[in-house]
Amino acid sequence: DGQLDTKKLCKMAELSYGDRAKLQTTHPLATQLLRLMEEKKTNLCVSADLTSCEELLQLADSLGPQICVLKTHVDVLQDFSPAFTQSLMDLALKHNFLIFEDRKFADIGNTVKHQYEGGLYQISSWSHIVNAHAVSGPGVLKGLSAVGNPLNRGCLLIAQMSSQGSLATGDYTQAVVKMAEENSDFVFGFISGSKISSRPEFLHMTPGVQMQTGGDDLGQQYSSPDDVILNKGSDIIIVGRGILGASDRVKAAADYRDAGWNAYVKRLDRSQTDV
Amino acid sequence: DGQLDTKKLCKMAELSYGDRAKLQTTHPLATQLLRLMEEKKTNLCVSADLTSCEELLQLADSLGPQICVLKTHVDVLQDFSPAFTQSLMDLALKHNFLIFEDRKFADIGNTVKHQYEGGLYQISSWSHIVNAHAVSGPGVLKGLSAVGNPLNRGCLLIAQMSSQGSLATGDYTQAVVKMAEENSDFVFGFISGSKISSRPEFLHMTPGVQMQTGGDDLGQQYSSPDDVILNKGSDIIIVGRGILGASDRVKAAADYRDAGWNAYVKRLDRSQTDV
Repeated sequence: DGQLDTKKLCKMAELSYGDRAKLQTTHPLATQLLRLMEEKKTNLCVSADLTSCEELLQLADSLGPQICVLKTHVDVLQDFSPAFTQSLMDLALKHNFLIFEDRKFADIGNTVKHQYEGGLYQISSWSHIVNAHAVSGPGVLKGLSAVGNPLNRGCLLIAQMSSQGSLATGDYTQAVVKMAEENSDFVFGFISGSKISSRPEFLHMTPGVQMQTGGDDLGQQYSSPDDVILNKGSDIIIVGRGILGASDRVKAAADYRDAGWNAYVKRLDRSQTDV
Repeated sequence: DGQLDTKKLCKMAELSYGDRAKLQTTHPLATQLLRLMEEKKTNLCVSADLTSCEELLQLADSLGPQICVLKTHVDVLQDFSPAFTQSLMDLALKHNFLIFEDRKFADIGNTVKHQYEGGLYQISSWSHIVNAHAVSGPGVLKGLSAVGNPLNRGCLLIAQMSSQGSLATGDYTQAVVKMAEENSDFVFGFISGSKISSRPEFLHMTPGVQMQTGGDDLGQQYSSPDDVILNKGSDIIIVGRGILGASDRVKAAADYRDAGWNAYVKRLDRSQTDV
């Protein structure tokens, strides 16, 4: 029965993070990330949207054991300095997480090359992961990878967004998937609301995650960890205000970590039961 | 004959920069820009993609008399400082041009609000014009305008790009036009390859302009001033490497200014002859 075979094959493709780390086609940075997720039992990325370096470093140190990725917006820090990035890299080593500067590069290749490497922030020198919009075409990846590949960095393409009225839908999302597949020497996954590529070497990271669904008054829309990991098939939950806004951030991060990991275990179990 | 009337009406809508400045529906910042374009007889924006503050300020001072807008990427400057932005604002006053930080904001509303106002660059404090991608939905404008409107700033939406394989085409471009029309308290025009809105209060600015058409090896594609202003109906040419790469930048800027202005005069003449 052909239909069953396809279904079986599809379900068998539900590999663990650890197994996906071992695939030959997996980008070295994705391998590193999938391994540490398996080891630390976490698929939680915290979005450290703070405006003070000191506070951000304290957060990274206290939440470090809970997370696989720390996501930053360095351009909102009021007191950024090169010493800050050194401290952040030290914490990433200490707690075994990756740094992801959420820069959303979105210019032509020649410009993003300079934005990635130069300026005051020198993002390529300290951020393992960056992301880019596909709107300007594949040149954005040519520009970024010229800087990032020699440094063993990796990039996520933004395929869908959590904000209301986003234009990253339908054909746009499909074009992003194609662009990722054609540039897998540098692109190892997506920012998306759900799993959009069946290739197990690609990682999916989903922003806008909160236990309490809803939104803000500037168009943000929230999904729950269970929905994102179990139903939508994404790999990593990105949580910002759900943790930063909590009175006890460490406890909140532990709760999100448990919720994300349990959803992942449930997904693996379901896949094995079905086969 | 209905067809003739439509054509006549369409041609009559070809107003001069000065006339468009006087329209009640024109954004105050667009009025200021259209007026200074008429006064200085220039529709040239120079893209000052330099990595040294000193060199950028020298360029702004020497090209100031030729241009209507100076476009910056502050995040590629290796020695940015608040003193630099003060000097740049002084030069903008001295030579009567506007500053346009080409930041291409492309995140959710809550994030771009902080990126626009805060961090080391404090863009909203010195840049008259910024731009944004529409990919994240209208929330990006809610976030930016919360900061920019009280400061009398204005925003351009990126509707088309000059780079190869850009996804800003077709339905995407149409959605951008709609978003601009619905947010005209803050949005006064577009980054686009051609005129995409018939409303005379909107300005169109076109990047990727060079006398010699062609491209670079990172996907950039060039159009000539004549093509952009006369054939495509845009309002302002954005020239980067065509001027920065010239041995005599002042002479190159004067040549682009003449080419852009002559194309505009030709367009006005043609419109009057046709009516």
